[in-house]
Amino acid sequence: MAHFLDLLDDHGAAQLRVVKPVITIGEIVAEIMAVDVGEGFRSPLRLIGPYPSGAPAIFIDQVAKIGLPCAIISAVGNDDFGWLSIDRLRSDGVDISAIRIDNRLATGSAFVRYRSTGERDFVFNIVGSACSTIRRDAAASAVIASAGHIHVMGSSLFSPAVVSLVEDAITEIKARGGTVSFDPNGRKEMLDVPGMRDALARVLAQTDLFLPSGEELTLLTRAHTDDGAIAELLGAGIRSVVVKQGAAGATYHDRERTCRVAPMPVNEVDPTGAGDSFGGTFVACWLLGLPPEQCLRFANASGARAVMMRGPMEGNSTLAELETFLSVDALGANLWLSMMNTRRSGPRN
Amino acid sequence: MAHFLDLLDDHGAAQLRVVKPVITIGEIVAEIMAVDVGEGFRSPLRLIGPYPSGAPAIFIDQVAKIGLPCAIISAVGNDDFGWLSIDRLRSDGVDISAIRIDNRLATGSAFVRYRSTGERDFVFNIVGSACSTIRRDAAASAVIASAGHIHVMGSSLFSPAVVSLVEDAITEIKARGGTVSFDPNGRKEMLDVPGMRDALARVLAQTDLFLPSGEELTLLTRAHTDDGAIAELLGAGIRSVVVKQGAAGATYHDRERTCRVAPMPVNEVDPTGAGDSFGGTFVACWLLGLPPEQCLRFANASGARAVMMRGPMEGNSTLAELETFLSVDALGANLWLSMMNTRRSGPRN
Repeated sequence: MAHFLDLLDDHGAAQLRVVKPVITIGEIVAEIMAVDVGEGFRSPLRLIGPYPSGAPAIFIDQVAKIGLPCAIISAVGNDDFGWLSIDRLRSDGVDISAIRIDNRLATGSAFVRYRSTGERDFVFNIVGSACSTIRRDAAASAVIASAGHIHVMGSSLFSPAVVSLVEDAITEIKARGGTVSFDPNGRKEMLDVPGMRDALARVLAQTDLFLPSGEELTLLTRAHTDDGAIAELLGAGIRSVVVKQGAAGATYHDRERTCRVAPMPVNEVDPTGAGDSFGGTFVACWLLGLPPEQCLRFANASGARAVMMRGPMEGNSTLAELETFLSVDALGANLWLSMMNTRRSGPRN
Repeated sequence: MAHFLDLLDDHGAAQLRVVKPVITIGEIVAEIMAVDVGEGFRSPLRLIGPYPSGAPAIFIDQVAKIGLPCAIISAVGNDDFGWLSIDRLRSDGVDISAIRIDNRLATGSAFVRYRSTGERDFVFNIVGSACSTIRRDAAASAVIASAGHIHVMGSSLFSPAVVSLVEDAITEIKARGGTVSFDPNGRKEMLDVPGMRDALARVLAQTDLFLPSGEELTLLTRAHTDDGAIAELLGAGIRSVVVKQGAAGATYHDRERTCRVAPMPVNEVDPTGAGDSFGGTFVACWLLGLPPEQCLRFANASGARAVMMRGPMEGNSTLAELETFLSVDALGANLWLSMMNTRRSGPRN
């Protein structure tokens, strides 16, 4: 941990906790992006991919980049899209022992195209993919047994099997004093899936650190206002609530305080995955025992770097990279990252 | 049929048969192609797609372009990849009433990348896709009831449900005097799938027109030589055998004669689907009652045009287009099609 202490002493981290492994459970997918802005996929387009992706995969890769021990329980096909993601996660430091290789089904995939309005069109292959074979096996049990923290992505609760696997893992980890973070990471429509609202509510009841984006704050509360929802969540026993507001920054709430971090003015290339990268950094810093202001500052930088790189986890960052990014002014960072950007199509303004 | 008669009179087709609908059963997939030659999909690449694809879809689209009534029994997801294919098949004249829209699973997909050796690397999503829901429903039964001919692609026999659907359709169509064509369209490894050899052998026993490529000629025969296999197949009751040899042309065999068509020297851009396009034209011309030499000539031109266009069914051709193509010299055709090619990356030599 010498590396962290060197970096973090300047930020007032008097001492850091020893952290047991962080785990997450859910989909690994290959993402393919349309190069040109427009609607849908009903004619041949210029595309680029595959990029390793999937919300829990982006999250756990970022936790690994911060330097914490971590693992993902997932499943991929025995194909290049699966090996692409496994190789990336392994080389970034994620324990990949609980990623099943399914010989029958393909690795999940997601095609994404941006509209000029910023909305996105998708073609997903998740439910019929290898993701559908995520299950509790010996490798998953070993990873759960070692874990001190579990992060739950709402988007990953796509099958009753995953829901029960996640709930069992939460129960075990909490029983030995571990903690739970939860990112609903979903849209209102997901509540229409039978049993989904109850599953999300049960996860929320076990949550220590809640990380909703924008309107997800009130997705599962009786309160309809932001202030009311925060009071309700903290009153129900959640220790910390972090509201991610994308390009508008983020706010942290617990029973003692509220703090806010302003957005960083960056050149947005690809927002996909930025919230997951933010979450990975926040959870890692929070588990290390950093003060909330520092967690927010690093997480905010993580999200800012993520949107500047094309590809869902291509902009994931080490703590050293976040330090460098935070130490230069935003304009300088913009220029530097623009130069590094994989979209080398000429100067951007 | 005036159109055909006008075109075909020059070729000695004294009179054409009235043709009942041609049907096929099997996968519709979206194809995504790597732009650059190389191996596999383990890093982000330039891609182009989606293109409507799937061997039976390419085949039946070509039958429709020749002008015959035809239908496909298939299934796609309720996504842009599915609608892309449905729209294309419908606009080319295929009866799409028996294409199921599955609301849960994604449309099948296939990523293809060419190596410098001409070999191809794939990432397939078929077995867990909407293709896995192909079944006999009311729409499929109606299409089968109307059919005078069924074309079987060996690659489509990927599940026991499809095998039994195909076999039932063959039985019904043969019982009322209809005919069967069969393209094994597979590799030796497919024979390792339990029950596959028996299924292919049962289809072959019902086949009137057999269209193997290269070494597929001996895939299901006791004979190991080409001549021996042809004698064995004709002796077993198959009326006609057409051996597709890709860039080396094709040969036709029946009990009375053998005829051959020389390859057309074309500028190959993308061979994917050329054999299926060849098959669609051959089967359509054969059903129309054209002499084998004419069937071969049109089918050969169909395959030649197909390889000159990027995309599996982008080079499918109407009879008028085949006429034009056959009436100009090969060099002129090359120049003309190169200009039309969707790969507009500059002049080609």
